[in-house]
Amino acid sequence: MNQIVPSTRARLKRLAKRGAYDRETVHAVLDASVTCHIAYVLDGQPYCTPTAYWRDGDRLYWHGSSVSRMLQGQGAGIPVCLTTTHIDGLVLARSGFNCSMNYRSVMVFGTAAKVEDEAHKLEALDAYVERLFPGRVAEMRRPTVKEVRATTLISMEIEEASVKIRSGPPHDDDDDLDAGIWAGVIPITEAIGALQPCPLLPAGIVPGATTDPYAPGRHFDDILRANVGGAVAPADAGE
Amino acid sequence: MNQIVPSTRARLKRLAKRGAYDRETVHAVLDASVTCHIAYVLDGQPYCTPTAYWRDGDRLYWHGSSVSRMLQGQGAGIPVCLTTTHIDGLVLARSGFNCSMNYRSVMVFGTAAKVEDEAHKLEALDAYVERLFPGRVAEMRRPTVKEVRATTLISMEIEEASVKIRSGPPHDDDDDLDAGIWAGVIPITEAIGALQPCPLLPAGIVPGATTDPYAPGRHFDDILRANVGGAVAPADAGE
Repeated sequence: MNQIVPSTRARLKRLAKRGAYDRETVHAVLDASVTCHIAYVLDGQPYCTPTAYWRDGDRLYWHGSSVSRMLQGQGAGIPVCLTTTHIDGLVLARSGFNCSMNYRSVMVFGTAAKVEDEAHKLEALDAYVERLFPGRVAEMRRPTVKEVRATTLISMEIEEASVKIRSGPPHDDDDDLDAGIWAGVIPITEAIGALQPCPLLPAGIVPGATTDPYAPGRHFDDILRANVGGAVAPADAGE
Repeated sequence: MNQIVPSTRARLKRLAKRGAYDRETVHAVLDASVTCHIAYVLDGQPYCTPTAYWRDGDRLYWHGSSVSRMLQGQGAGIPVCLTTTHIDGLVLARSGFNCSMNYRSVMVFGTAAKVEDEAHKLEALDAYVERLFPGRVAEMRRPTVKEVRATTLISMEIEEASVKIRSGPPHDDDDDLDAGIWAGVIPITEAIGALQPCPLLPAGIVPGATTDPYAPGRHFDDILRANVGGAVAPADAGE
């Protein structure tokens, strides 16, 4: 139950112990990021395009300009593969072969299609703002009809998905343990910096509650997970 | 001169002012990262797979296990699109429509093919270690023949490439400037954390010179650029 069952395309061929397919883990890794890369094919050519995305249940959304080549191509309903990856650290082993990275990655398969209904579009675009800045929609002016029409919204049901996670120290060969060189993990995190006010901001306007989560030094993935009510670290599927 | 000239597939259709195609900028964005996502097609299905890569001139490399489905598929020589993206910040505008992100992204097109020659493989795998940890190859035991054979190395000439960069503050509509809400940029950086020694490390082994660049708080992209002798920030192509 609660499995997003992988077919051959989503099943991990190697290192199955690093793989997880349960819905909770798939959602947790998706919810820890807001940017992804999407693979799709136009005229036989594969493209890998970065974009922002957000999730509503088992449905993903992304958007952009109505003249975007990617979105025009995907709007007709084509198979795509959407992947997001967090690099959590460099794993420095005693041999090159055993060096690795710690990461959390999820690969999602589905069929992209354009959302035409304007009420649905508006609702989804609001959800994207709220996903990053809870409470912000109430503060901002509403999107105009022109803006909504100038935005292409793509939606995709998660048909299949697979997660890969690696964490923890290096795994060296026993014979290498006395190599006399340092080995371990160099952690990497996406950290928030000091807020940079818009130069056109009138005097006296200070950041409001909607930017409170973005405290300098906080980890971006923790903020994103907390914004959707999730725990700050997804389940660990082992090495 | 020095242009990696884009065909239709690599030419930016919109926001051409954000686009750059000169070799120096393409290399600078590639050199500021070590992980990418690769789009490719197997049996008609697009895949988007994260992996580590490194660059030698106009040639990119990536590698993995010899039983990897991606690498087996790419080894035969297929078109791929390799993209790497740095998220530099969230751009919070006064309207949802004008919200954006600051980023540096490069999309590279080429034909992936397996490197079979074992001396070439060894040289390239050493280059990958040195790319992350200059001086480390001299400290580590050499790869065994078995390890080299268990590794599939893929190589690709950069046939075409395009860079997209956005930086700077939000661009709001004039009518929104007096909305009375905060607007600006929330910077995001990939920051190094405190080194985590391998639990099996013998007493007295401390990090050596090869990990010196990874000082806690340093930005990962700056380290990567410095490791190849590059400036820490690539040219800025404007909004």
